[in-house]
Amino acid sequence: MSLQPSWVSSANAPDCDFPLNNLPYGVFSHGDDDPHCGVAIGDQILDLTEAEACGIVALTDEPLFDLPFWNPLMEQGPAVWAALRARLAALLAKGSSEQERIADLLVPMAGARLHMPIMVSEYTDFYAGRHHAANVGAMFRGAENALPPNWLHMPIGYNGRASSVQVSGTPVRRPWGQIKSARHDSPAFLPSRRFDFELELGAIVGTPSDGPLSVQRADDAIFGYVLLNDWSARDIQGWEAQPLGPFQAKATATSISPWIVTSAALAPFRRAAPARDVALLAHLDDCGPMHYDIDLCVTLAPDGQPATTICRTNTRELYYSAAQQLAHHSTSGCPMNTGDLLGSGTISGATRPERGSLLELSWGGQEPLSLETGHTRRFLEDGDHLVLSGAAQGKGYRIGFGDCAGTVLPALDDPFGDQG
Amino acid sequence: MSLQPSWVSSANAPDCDFPLNNLPYGVFSHGDDDPHCGVAIGDQILDLTEAEACGIVALTDEPLFDLPFWNPLMEQGPAVWAALRARLAALLAKGSSEQERIADLLVPMAGARLHMPIMVSEYTDFYAGRHHAANVGAMFRGAENALPPNWLHMPIGYNGRASSVQVSGTPVRRPWGQIKSARHDSPAFLPSRRFDFELELGAIVGTPSDGPLSVQRADDAIFGYVLLNDWSARDIQGWEAQPLGPFQAKATATSISPWIVTSAALAPFRRAAPARDVALLAHLDDCGPMHYDIDLCVTLAPDGQPATTICRTNTRELYYSAAQQLAHHSTSGCPMNTGDLLGSGTISGATRPERGSLLELSWGGQEPLSLETGHTRRFLEDGDHLVLSGAAQGKGYRIGFGDCAGTVLPALDDPFGDQG
Repeated sequence: MSLQPSWVSSANAPDCDFPLNNLPYGVFSHGDDDPHCGVAIGDQILDLTEAEACGIVALTDEPLFDLPFWNPLMEQGPAVWAALRARLAALLAKGSSEQERIADLLVPMAGARLHMPIMVSEYTDFYAGRHHAANVGAMFRGAENALPPNWLHMPIGYNGRASSVQVSGTPVRRPWGQIKSARHDSPAFLPSRRFDFELELGAIVGTPSDGPLSVQRADDAIFGYVLLNDWSARDIQGWEAQPLGPFQAKATATSISPWIVTSAALAPFRRAAPARDVALLAHLDDCGPMHYDIDLCVTLAPDGQPATTICRTNTRELYYSAAQQLAHHSTSGCPMNTGDLLGSGTISGATRPERGSLLELSWGGQEPLSLETGHTRRFLEDGDHLVLSGAAQGKGYRIGFGDCAGTVLPALDDPFGDQG
Repeated sequence: MSLQPSWVSSANAPDCDFPLNNLPYGVFSHGDDDPHCGVAIGDQILDLTEAEACGIVALTDEPLFDLPFWNPLMEQGPAVWAALRARLAALLAKGSSEQERIADLLVPMAGARLHMPIMVSEYTDFYAGRHHAANVGAMFRGAENALPPNWLHMPIGYNGRASSVQVSGTPVRRPWGQIKSARHDSPAFLPSRRFDFELELGAIVGTPSDGPLSVQRADDAIFGYVLLNDWSARDIQGWEAQPLGPFQAKATATSISPWIVTSAALAPFRRAAPARDVALLAHLDDCGPMHYDIDLCVTLAPDGQPATTICRTNTRELYYSAAQQLAHHSTSGCPMNTGDLLGSGTISGATRPERGSLLELSWGGQEPLSLETGHTRRFLEDGDHLVLSGAAQGKGYRIGFGDCAGTVLPALDDPFGDQG
């Protein structure tokens, strides 16, 4: 696969995140206008709500893009997804006979405000990165017991909080929580002092189901992907998480990148699964290349300071694909719905600069990370600005995700204010 | 408080679940008619969708009861909740001047089909019953470590799966799952052999919030209560639940009783909190009587056989109130929404006949439970019909919940059928 040229010239630059090969889906607005569905192309956004309203895109009898989220299209299933992608590619390709009509529907990305692209139905967070699981396990259970006994047999995960999901750019306020330090016999209610990020890939369920899915069916049901930052309060987590798992430590905020990169756009970047230490059971077994080769990067900028790149890794570090995560999620008959969001769990590589959380980068706070500004970090400080970014690199083009960004605001002075 | 007489004479019987004092909210239909919002009174249902359509109930400019769920009313907040309750009480009280108009809007409960009363936004399951937590802890960690270290300091819980919530009467299919027995080195994918029920009280969040709530504010935000059966696959749970908590073991189905019993109806049955072994932190401290005195009962009927009562207990066994659960849930700033459902966790008393799960009743399967039919049960068998019921007992009347029922269907022969 090589670059597919577009008459939108900015889309043809080799370092552009949004060439014609990509066509990611988002929701945008300008000024006080209502948010519309849009497609990123180069440095422009094609206003799809308008394109549908004036009949240029007409996939179904009922409108699909008159609401400011992509769930109605996602519900339609793979045939309609493919029809939309083919239509958009034809409209935006170099030599399109419809260039003039479409040019009027382009708005500059600069100055556009990006909104949540989907209504999140439910949010689940997995733990599918092997180095992350091994690092965390080694810190808390010792190197011999680093991976939990079930880890090599299924993608373990927990249900997160859909209400916490927010679009890139929305700040996150440092949470209060119940925390017990090793020095005290009892817990206290305090602002988190070990607030962290987690670099993840988010998969978005398109087609619903209400019974167990094979891995192939699960793969078919995934509409697309976003970058995801699972903000985590490690001190709250340490006290609350046994025996029922993470809860308030993960409920403050979960940021996602604003553009849904479709499974179709990522098809050329599918890769085989990693070698398996133990064979997976048949219902979870690899049945084709369902992992992806996506380069990832995290930068951290202290308040008002330049950014330092603190992590570079790749989604190939995931041991379980999103298809395997979804297949496992459905084994019990759990109904899965359009707009369900599945976080992969933190993606870390084998070496320190490849670690996708400060917990790992500072090894539980014991080895502070040095930034290029001269600052050091054990965990996040107020004002820190985090940016996750990622792209699959093709020959002469790339499939970019855009940024997943967020700034840490200080904790509330008095979380209960004047409440009774 | 004593019985408030209604001109609907069946509502005045002392053993009626739905006297004028109760006025619980549900969604019902007859035959192929569209589901309507309704209020239970005696053996009748007042069609509130109709009552609003013909102007008998008019609380707001926009209709609140034209959709088949109660979320629009719930979003209005406590003042409108109180106005509706006052209006309904006036319409249905003995001596009401509007008896004739209202009589036309009553439909017999017999033959009505009951639907989900709310759109569940998200579902959280707590672990707030002390005897249950101690029983499970003793089974799995030994009597010395029965209660986890955090248990006496906060209502621990985990996020469940909203898509699994179904109304009473919907059958539940025995799930498949990954299971590892002690006799084998590796897991297998099998139908659950340790499928169980859990007797819980479900609290429904009415008013949304996006920051930490005091216990008083949390109590004010709770619209009402239902009975809840958190169907649980113990063998799936045993293999999956560490370190991230229960996941597929709890995702097959969660049944709720069809009538929302409002916080207002339960007000006379508020009770003080139990004695605290250790003082709660200020943000969770008891600030008034927020526990309830509700008698609970569970019956089990093998396929085609009479039912045996297998548990009698009371919601006073909960160590944490729903208000405390919700307050804790919001500490991190977790946004809470109209329609969020909070399960209490299993409610068990101190003695064997008061235990609210088969896991406890059969002590992990070691002490089979004898039914009156001569059958025994370690866990649920195919065809078993479970009924949870509950009522707060007043002088000459009671506030009943109606049944929370479900039948266990056999596992699918081949969960993946002809899938690729």
